[in-house]
Amino acid sequence: MSEKLRIGLLGRGTVGSAFDELVAERADQVEAATGRRPEVTGVLTRSQGDFGEILPDADVIVELMGGTDTAREHVLAALKAGVPVVTANKQLLAQHGAELFAAAEEAGVQLRFEAAVAAVVPVIRVVQESFGAVEFNKVFGIVNGTTNFILSEMAATGASYGDVLKRAQELGYAEADPTEDVNGADAAAKMAILARLAFHTPVTLDQVDFEGIEDIQPDDLAYAKELGLSLKLLGVAEKFEQGITVRVFPCFLYPGHPLAPIEGPFNAVMVEAPEITEVTMSGPGAGGLQTAAAVLGDVVSVAAGNARTHTADRDLPILTDVASSFYLHLEVADEPGVLAEVAKMLSDGGVSVKSVVQRGLGDDARLVMVVHHCLESEFKAAVAQIAELDALRSSPRFIRVIEEEFTA
Amino acid sequence: MSEKLRIGLLGRGTVGSAFDELVAERADQVEAATGRRPEVTGVLTRSQGDFGEILPDADVIVELMGGTDTAREHVLAALKAGVPVVTANKQLLAQHGAELFAAAEEAGVQLRFEAAVAAVVPVIRVVQESFGAVEFNKVFGIVNGTTNFILSEMAATGASYGDVLKRAQELGYAEADPTEDVNGADAAAKMAILARLAFHTPVTLDQVDFEGIEDIQPDDLAYAKELGLSLKLLGVAEKFEQGITVRVFPCFLYPGHPLAPIEGPFNAVMVEAPEITEVTMSGPGAGGLQTAAAVLGDVVSVAAGNARTHTADRDLPILTDVASSFYLHLEVADEPGVLAEVAKMLSDGGVSVKSVVQRGLGDDARLVMVVHHCLESEFKAAVAQIAELDALRSSPRFIRVIEEEFTA
Repeated sequence: MSEKLRIGLLGRGTVGSAFDELVAERADQVEAATGRRPEVTGVLTRSQGDFGEILPDADVIVELMGGTDTAREHVLAALKAGVPVVTANKQLLAQHGAELFAAAEEAGVQLRFEAAVAAVVPVIRVVQESFGAVEFNKVFGIVNGTTNFILSEMAATGASYGDVLKRAQELGYAEADPTEDVNGADAAAKMAILARLAFHTPVTLDQVDFEGIEDIQPDDLAYAKELGLSLKLLGVAEKFEQGITVRVFPCFLYPGHPLAPIEGPFNAVMVEAPEITEVTMSGPGAGGLQTAAAVLGDVVSVAAGNARTHTADRDLPILTDVASSFYLHLEVADEPGVLAEVAKMLSDGGVSVKSVVQRGLGDDARLVMVVHHCLESEFKAAVAQIAELDALRSSPRFIRVIEEEFTA
Repeated sequence: MSEKLRIGLLGRGTVGSAFDELVAERADQVEAATGRRPEVTGVLTRSQGDFGEILPDADVIVELMGGTDTAREHVLAALKAGVPVVTANKQLLAQHGAELFAAAEEAGVQLRFEAAVAAVVPVIRVVQESFGAVEFNKVFGIVNGTTNFILSEMAATGASYGDVLKRAQELGYAEADPTEDVNGADAAAKMAILARLAFHTPVTLDQVDFEGIEDIQPDDLAYAKELGLSLKLLGVAEKFEQGITVRVFPCFLYPGHPLAPIEGPFNAVMVEAPEITEVTMSGPGAGGLQTAAAVLGDVVSVAAGNARTHTADRDLPILTDVASSFYLHLEVADEPGVLAEVAKMLSDGGVSVKSVVQRGLGDDARLVMVVHHCLESEFKAAVAQIAELDALRSSPRFIRVIEEEFTA
C-alpha cells in the first residue's frame, strides 16, 4: 500500500465540496501520478474543525475558504510550518502576494494557485513553468466569465445591460451581488496576479486601473456590429520601454482577433513574447467542478514533484470502427430518380441524411450531402453500393464532419 | 556566482541554432528561475563533437538532431547515465516511447518533450501536469501547421491543392518534400504521443490510422462554404467504453467550434473531460525560434525542479497613460458643421479618425467613430473639449479598441 497524501481542506463551500468529492473519485489517478493516495484528513468550516489540529496532520493545505484575514493567517502558518499550500483565493494573492511568496520561499515549500485566475484554464502554470524564462511583452485576456456572458448576450439580443444581468443571475452566471464582477474589480485582482508573474514586478490590486461594463449601452453594441467589432471586458498587462501597465476595461476587437470568438461564460488568456509569438488558452473560467479540477492539478504537482515520468499503466484496446458524420460528394447523371435511389441506399444502410445541396452541371449534376452520425463501416458500405450505380459519373468522395455544434 | 547549468546540445540545425542563441539571450532569466546559469558546454553535429565527451560534462542533454537511430542511442545512454533529456523529436517518441519512458523511470531522471507535439503550444505540460489526474474523454486538434495553412489558403482563394502547396513551399510553410506533412504521417506521430499521455496506454505510430489532404478538391471547399463548414486536418484521440481511437483525417467543422477560427500555420489542441469541460490551447506550432522556446521551457523545468517559488525580483514602474485606439459615440444636433467641428478638435488634439458612421435621429444625429492609436491623455483632453460644444445632446461615450488586425 502506498503512502497517504493527507489533505487539510479549509472551506467547504461550492468549490470545497466539489474538491472533496473529486479527490475521492480521482484517488486512483492521483496515486498513479504521484505514488501517494490522497485523502482529505481534516476539514475546516465556519462551524467545524480546528486549524491547530488539521495542520500537523496535513501533507498539503488546500485553502478554499475565501476572504483575506483568516485565510492569510492560516496560509502563512502552513507555509511557516513547511507545509505546502494550494489556494484558489485571488484576493488573498492580489492583496498579500508579496508576503505569502516570501514565506513560501523562506520555508522552501510550494505555494500553488492555478485556480485563482482562470479556474481550469492553465494560465498560471504556463506562464510560470512552460514560459519560465520568456520575456513577455503582453499578457491579456478575458478573465471574468460573468461579464463575458453579459456582453455576449447583449450583442446577440440587443437587450439592455440590466435585463441581461437579471438573466445571468437566473442562470447562475452572476452572483446575487454582482458588483465585483461587473465593475472590473474581480478581473483586476486576477490581472494583478498575472502581471506579477509575467513581469516579475510586485503589482498589487490598488495599482490596477479598472473599468466595468455597467455603462455599456445596447446601441454601442449595435454600432459595433456595423463596424465589425465585438466587445469584451479585457484585462491587459503590457510592457513598455518605460514600465508596465495593468488595466481592465471594456474593449472592441476586430474579427480575426483570437479573443473575438470567445463567447459566453468563458475565459481566454493570450501571452505574447518575441520567442513564442502568441499563445492563447481558453476554457471555462469558473464553476465549482472546474475550479476543483484546477486545485487538484496543483495538489498533484505538489505531491509529484517535478520528476514525474510518464507511465503507460493501462492498456486500452485501440478501436478502428467508430461513428462519425460525413460530407458526401457525388457526380451523377442529371436524370430523374437518382437522388431517390441514393437516398434509399443510404437509408437501407442505416445512414440518415442531414442536409443536401443538388446542382446541375450540363448533363451531370452534383449531389452534396451531410449525413448524421453513423458507424464508418456502415457509411462506407452504403457508399460502396452507391459507387456501383450506373448514373454515377465519378468516384464518390467523402470527408468527415464534426456534427457537434458549439454554443459556448 | 551561481552554479552552472551545463547543456549538451545534440544537433545544430534550424532549431538547434535558435536554441543555442536563445540560451545565451535568456541566461539571466534562466538563472533567476532556476538559480543556475545555463551554458551550452558541448555540441554534437554530423561533422563536430564526440558524444562520449559531451555526456559526462552535461547536466542535461538537449536532443535536436532528429532521426531515430543515433538519437535513440544517445538519449538512452544519457538517461541510463542519470542525465535528464529534453527532446523535440516526435518520431523518436512515437516509435520508441515505451523504451525511453522506461529508461527514464528506471534511472529516476526527467525526459521532457514539449516541443515534440505543438512547439510552443504547451499541450504536453498541460496534459501531464495541470491535468495529471484528469480522466480525458477526448484530446484532439490541429497539430500540423503546414496542412492548416494549405487548407486555409484553398478555402480563401479557391485555388487547387497543388497551387497552394507550391505557394506554401515558397513561403517556407512547407518542406521541399512535404509528404510527411500532407499525408497526415506527421500529425499521426504527434497524436500517438498525445494519446499515450492522455489515456496511459502505449500507442505507437503504426496504430494510428491517418489520411492526408492531397485529395481535397476546391469544389469540396466551395460546397462546404455554402453549408457553413470549414475544413481542418484533425488529429483525434478519443475514449469509448470499449477502448480508444487515434486517428488523423480531414474534417469539416461547424461555425462556433473552437477550432473553426484557427487559420494559417497555427496549431490548436482541445482537451475534454467531465471535470474540465473543454480547454483549448493555440499558437504557432512550428518555427525554429518558437520550438527552441519550448525546449528552453523544458530545460528550465529540468533545472528548477518543482519547488520554484515566484519572486518579484524586478520593480518596473507602473504606467497609466498609454496609447490606445478608441470608439467614440456622440449625440449631436443635426446641424451643418458639427462633424467638421468635432473632427477639427480631434485633429488639433493629435487624434486621427479611422472611420465614421453618421446617422440622423429626428433633430439629433449620432456620430460614431473609431480613432487611431493615440495617448489616452490626448484623447480624453480632446473629448473634454468636444463635451463643451453647444451642439452636443448628451455626454460623449468612448470605449477602447484593439486596432491590431490579426491575419493568422
